Amino acid sequence: MPHIELGNDLPGIVSLFAFRPETAAPLNELAEILLRGPSTLSRGERELIAARVSHLNSCRFCTNCHAAFAAAQLDQGMPLVDQVRTDPAAAPVSDKLKALLAVADAVQESGRAVTDEHIKTARAAGATDTEIHDTVLIAAAFCMYNRYVDGLATIAPDQPAAYSEMADHITVHGYREAVPLQP
Amino acid sequence: MPHIELGNDLPGIVSLFAFRPETAAPLNELAEILLRGPSTLSRGERELIAARVSHLNSCRFCTNCHAAFAAAQLDQGMPLVDQVRTDPAAAPVSDKLKALLAVADAVQESGRAVTDEHIKTARAAGATDTEIHDTVLIAAAFCMYNRYVDGLATIAPDQPAAYSEMADHITVHGYREAVPLQP
Repeated sequence: MPHIELGNDLPGIVSLFAFRPETAAPLNELAEILLRGPSTLSRGERELIAARVSHLNSCRFCTNCHAAFAAAQLDQGMPLVDQVRTDPAAAPVSDKLKALLAVADAVQESGRAVTDEHIKTARAAGATDTEIHDTVLIAAAFCMYNRYVDGLATIAPDQPAAYSEMADHITVHGYREAVPLQP
Repeated sequence: MPHIELGNDLPGIVSLFAFRPETAAPLNELAEILLRGPSTLSRGERELIAARVSHLNSCRFCTNCHAAFAAAQLDQGMPLVDQVRTDPAAAPVSDKLKALLAVADAVQESGRAVTDEHIKTARAAGATDTEIHDTVLIAAAFCMYNRYVDGLATIAPDQPAAYSEMADHITVHGYREAVPLQP
């Protein structure tokens, strides 16, 4: 049960968007730019980073959401997402994405845990400065979203269908549309 | 030295705003609403929460900034900010603010670390649902800002004057103006 009276029984962060639409707008705008805006990383790759960080933060709602959003936008679907989520170093992804996932893992621990070595490895695998920047900010942003969702004890549905329905919506309409959807 | 070529020698998060203005806009909008928008918590109180979380995350740039912004907006100035930053439970602040600072400390650890007891104590001290919500989101947001600033190894000035100058600017013009300021 949520820690505060949200006035709705919507799931996860969606219930918080409805409770406080003022903060929902920049939170969704940030997600839209980072996860769906113009980038040399695909939308599926960026959702993988979000799912991995949410998994490390043990945030069930966000992990399930972004795993579903990644699977919907990657040819290899959920089997690849599950591998990346639990063991990115062993997953069959490019060396560049593997190096960026290692940067994201460090950020999840602490900004100070990102080393020159992490950056050198990412660069050697072909990552650009903007890709490194965006990876750090995606990982940092999910350290916020995850704490927001769980810090207020919002509801995480059990049924996988709840997440695949959200994936159908987000992959078509994007994150900005997550706000007006609220009652 | 920053991990990536930012194309400027601005300090901390300001250098990142200049590098990536697209993400700077929602990041500043969120800070403006949370730290300066309409609220039953004063701007000084909200900056104290930001300074405390930044201190726990060992982010020197953000701690110095938000300590300066809090001090500039509280009658008791920097001595109170230093007490709250290092030992909020012993600081001479209201029971309500003390309880909200304890919620923020829990969020810094993990969203799942916020207990029913934290919420009960905050409510008993007079905190409203919106105050609890905003405290959780401020604490969560600084878990993002701190990781963003340190994950890219941005520069934190040594001179206190750098932070008091930023305080002069932010307390008058707000966070939205932090974007157009960039070159």
